[in-house]
Amino acid sequence: MTDVQHMKWWGWGNEGVGFHHEDKPGFAPFILDSLALDLHTAKVIGTPSFGAMTVPKSIATAALTKSITDIVGEKYSTTDDMERVVHTFGKSLRDLVRIRANDIKRAPDVVVYPADEDEIRKIVDAAVAADAVIIPFGGGSNIAGSLEPLATEKRAVISLDLGRMNRVIEIDTDSGLARIQAGALGPDLEAQLAEKGWTIGHFPDSFTHSTLGGWIATRSSGMQSDKYGDIADITRGLRLVRADGTLVIRAIPSASNGPSVREMILGSEGRLGIITEATVQVHRVPEKRDVFAYFFPTWEVGLKAMQAIAESDATPSVTRISDSPETKFSLATSKESHGVSKFLAESLLPWLMRRKGWNLDDICLSFIGYEGGDAHAKKQKKLVDKIVKAHGGMGVGKGPGILYDQKKFDTPYLRDFLLDRGAAGDVSESAAPWSKLAGLHDGVVKAAYGAFDEIGIKGLIISHLSHSYHSGACLYFTFGFVFGNKPLEEYDTVKRAIQQAFIDNGGSISHHHGVGLEHAPWLEQDISTSGVAVMRGLFDSADPKGTFNPGKVIAG
Amino acid sequence: MTDVQHMKWWGWGNEGVGFHHEDKPGFAPFILDSLALDLHTAKVIGTPSFGAMTVPKSIATAALTKSITDIVGEKYSTTDDMERVVHTFGKSLRDLVRIRANDIKRAPDVVVYPADEDEIRKIVDAAVAADAVIIPFGGGSNIAGSLEPLATEKRAVISLDLGRMNRVIEIDTDSGLARIQAGALGPDLEAQLAEKGWTIGHFPDSFTHSTLGGWIATRSSGMQSDKYGDIADITRGLRLVRADGTLVIRAIPSASNGPSVREMILGSEGRLGIITEATVQVHRVPEKRDVFAYFFPTWEVGLKAMQAIAESDATPSVTRISDSPETKFSLATSKESHGVSKFLAESLLPWLMRRKGWNLDDICLSFIGYEGGDAHAKKQKKLVDKIVKAHGGMGVGKGPGILYDQKKFDTPYLRDFLLDRGAAGDVSESAAPWSKLAGLHDGVVKAAYGAFDEIGIKGLIISHLSHSYHSGACLYFTFGFVFGNKPLEEYDTVKRAIQQAFIDNGGSISHHHGVGLEHAPWLEQDISTSGVAVMRGLFDSADPKGTFNPGKVIAG
Repeated sequence: MTDVQHMKWWGWGNEGVGFHHEDKPGFAPFILDSLALDLHTAKVIGTPSFGAMTVPKSIATAALTKSITDIVGEKYSTTDDMERVVHTFGKSLRDLVRIRANDIKRAPDVVVYPADEDEIRKIVDAAVAADAVIIPFGGGSNIAGSLEPLATEKRAVISLDLGRMNRVIEIDTDSGLARIQAGALGPDLEAQLAEKGWTIGHFPDSFTHSTLGGWIATRSSGMQSDKYGDIADITRGLRLVRADGTLVIRAIPSASNGPSVREMILGSEGRLGIITEATVQVHRVPEKRDVFAYFFPTWEVGLKAMQAIAESDATPSVTRISDSPETKFSLATSKESHGVSKFLAESLLPWLMRRKGWNLDDICLSFIGYEGGDAHAKKQKKLVDKIVKAHGGMGVGKGPGILYDQKKFDTPYLRDFLLDRGAAGDVSESAAPWSKLAGLHDGVVKAAYGAFDEIGIKGLIISHLSHSYHSGACLYFTFGFVFGNKPLEEYDTVKRAIQQAFIDNGGSISHHHGVGLEHAPWLEQDISTSGVAVMRGLFDSADPKGTFNPGKVIAG
Repeated sequence: MTDVQHMKWWGWGNEGVGFHHEDKPGFAPFILDSLALDLHTAKVIGTPSFGAMTVPKSIATAALTKSITDIVGEKYSTTDDMERVVHTFGKSLRDLVRIRANDIKRAPDVVVYPADEDEIRKIVDAAVAADAVIIPFGGGSNIAGSLEPLATEKRAVISLDLGRMNRVIEIDTDSGLARIQAGALGPDLEAQLAEKGWTIGHFPDSFTHSTLGGWIATRSSGMQSDKYGDIADITRGLRLVRADGTLVIRAIPSASNGPSVREMILGSEGRLGIITEATVQVHRVPEKRDVFAYFFPTWEVGLKAMQAIAESDATPSVTRISDSPETKFSLATSKESHGVSKFLAESLLPWLMRRKGWNLDDICLSFIGYEGGDAHAKKQKKLVDKIVKAHGGMGVGKGPGILYDQKKFDTPYLRDFLLDRGAAGDVSESAAPWSKLAGLHDGVVKAAYGAFDEIGIKGLIISHLSHSYHSGACLYFTFGFVFGNKPLEEYDTVKRAIQQAFIDNGGSISHHHGVGLEHAPWLEQDISTSGVAVMRGLFDSADPKGTFNPGKVIAG
């Protein structure tokens, strides 16, 4: 066994860590009310047993296995079933449902852990020679179906795990650029940078279990993207091993050298080759990194305030606002002794809100972040506070913000908790211009409730605005329902309704999760038939044998 | 004749406008000293005569001409020689030298002015049916050889002039997004936006004679890019007419939908189809738009200061600094009664500089801009002033900045003035990380002087830093020499040396001028052999018949 760490084979995150509600008194009533699921009586499905799994046999020939082993050594090449199952899926709801249902149609045939780019070069050559398929694997946190071998794949499939390639190679301190290996996990690369006083400023929800290469391959975006940019902005240089050689994009701040090959690799989900390293923008760890909480009387007002902030001269690092159902959810998931609930309970806030004529049922919780030098952060807060006030919102200080900051990476554990109790919890996001955001929000909510009606199950959908840009923002939706008799069919009905509502209301099919198999059916509606034709031409010409993760982003 | 305005067929800009030095007493001595060219005795070559030109005959068949005329009407389709010559080249030095030398190997066979996207659709269909070539034409300001038909082209070539498509279609005031037709010239679109209180904030040197579609097709960058971004950042939505249909990228602020097709169209120089319109970010005209002048004792110190500004929390709209030779040039081109020279002459500045121990031969002139609300602009200036001071620079107020602002679009006229006197004046730019900028500057200067030595002619190269990013900046070089016996061979020797020095010192082949035929030979060194292979696959698969501007960006 290698020392590359993986998440639970059947769920999110580290062994022994999970979501608990015993210390969150508001949680069970909230779930009862919104999903008609009684957590006190619900039957808890235990952890699935690996022994009971049916794992498709590896079809790798002895010759292929030997050629791979010859490159990386015995320790780093394996056809072990557990390893193959770990590398079969990402962590989408569909993935977790299937793995719990012992429903693996196709698993990778070999898992390989190269030490460096040179070994990747040799693995690619061996795969091409053997007409095998390669699927790159980072942290395995993908939720768009980008990692699984196609069920119909007759060729041998190699899962290429980049977990050993996790080093920050060098930092160009003059330029604020760091060369980092593609397999570095968020906390790992951030720790190596922090040691020298730097940060990448990229903190997606998956941060603890996702890698630089995975962020690039799926166009990730972190919570402080308002300041640091999306990973597409952060990534300057790239190295990509392809069948014809190694593609090298040098770290140039901006260039006019034809259609951007850098922007072709971003979002390519393995289809153009194996990303081995990237040179990314890094920043000196700022003097101040604060997140403050605010309340707005309604979603409409809060949305207007976020738009006004984006239009203003202020430059906060985070602008986030939950709609009122998500605000209720946040209050319900707060621990008794901490967080926003406590803050609300013990303060004069509810009294104050009522006095202002607010309906407590409609209030929306917002988090706004400020980073930089002390004076800069203070100045930005002052500018934002003025806008918040002008829109009738109110600041409630840093306390809840600190707690938000601490628990932001724990949310994915909630999905397994719900699955353990026979319920679905999932997320989907879209971005749209400011003028379309209110309509997008309402359209998606309406579509989801329509789908819940269609499957005849009580469901919930909640949302927040999570990333702001000059011309628009991302809306992030979380939805749930208790499974009936046909979990994946019910899930499809709801997910399909949400994705179609994204398109119908002017949004993208995804803001930062990727396309994979999951969102590919909507790509044509997003970037037009001709746009898909151009992309297909790119994939087919760059990889005529279909060696690299075939069928993802564009089906077929 | 249509009412679409074009530049002089033989040079830059409007008829009757040109560069004059009579009111700039420092200019003739500067040119004598740096190029050994005596403007008082130099023979002035007059405007070339169109009657003396040998224009290759149009090879368009009557059937093709008729099919085009049937689409747009008689008035908007022509095989007139003057129209064809106007559409043969851009305005690169090579273009101007060739046109003055009556050296046109191939001109477009038909020039067509469509009224709208629907007519473009029909023209594309007609061209594909007739196996003709289409080259889109905006303002004709291109200096990378992106517009000329290949000398070897045996098929009929249609120059598709977008000049009639110049409207701002609509402004989404909530989102700060404007739909604008691709043929709109800078001043035209800016005036339509300004009428409603908006600005695009994109002001390249070519602004007065370049179009939105051209900016997008070549990855343009404007002088205020530090604030507004490059055109790649500004452009959100796109419409592109291709053989297989119309490609539509909706204006989404940021999306994860695979490799970016938007970023494939950006910089495509006509090779993927005809850009008909774009949805771009626009901003409310800011309360303040100021450019202030500064002096630094040396280039090294000035460069460090620019780097420190980019690293700081300050967000100026322009950061620009000239090296000392360019500073001397700027002082020499100032009018007697205005500008920096006057400012210097009449102030205590030289005395002050000497007292600080500065060598006046080494001083560097810098312009830094501030835009936004009054308080914001003031605040940014305060932050920048502090950094300038810490680096030993000094601010000299707004006076010179205003003049810089007024004359910034006039510089291209200087090239014709020099050509009239048998001398070359040209520009080339590159971008690199901060850590490599000093080396890039010195490497390019050394390479240029090496090339001047090689051709045995006294030459000059001057430079400024023109666009700053988190991780680096653009260096913009201007060079000149008096032609010997073989103008284009001499030019090639110098230009080649500069381009190769870009690559050898870590820079891109271009920052915002494009690739065309001019820079294509260096593309492989810039984005690697495998990168060019991927791009070639994109072009070949998107346009298998080579209908759209073949041979540009990637040769052959």
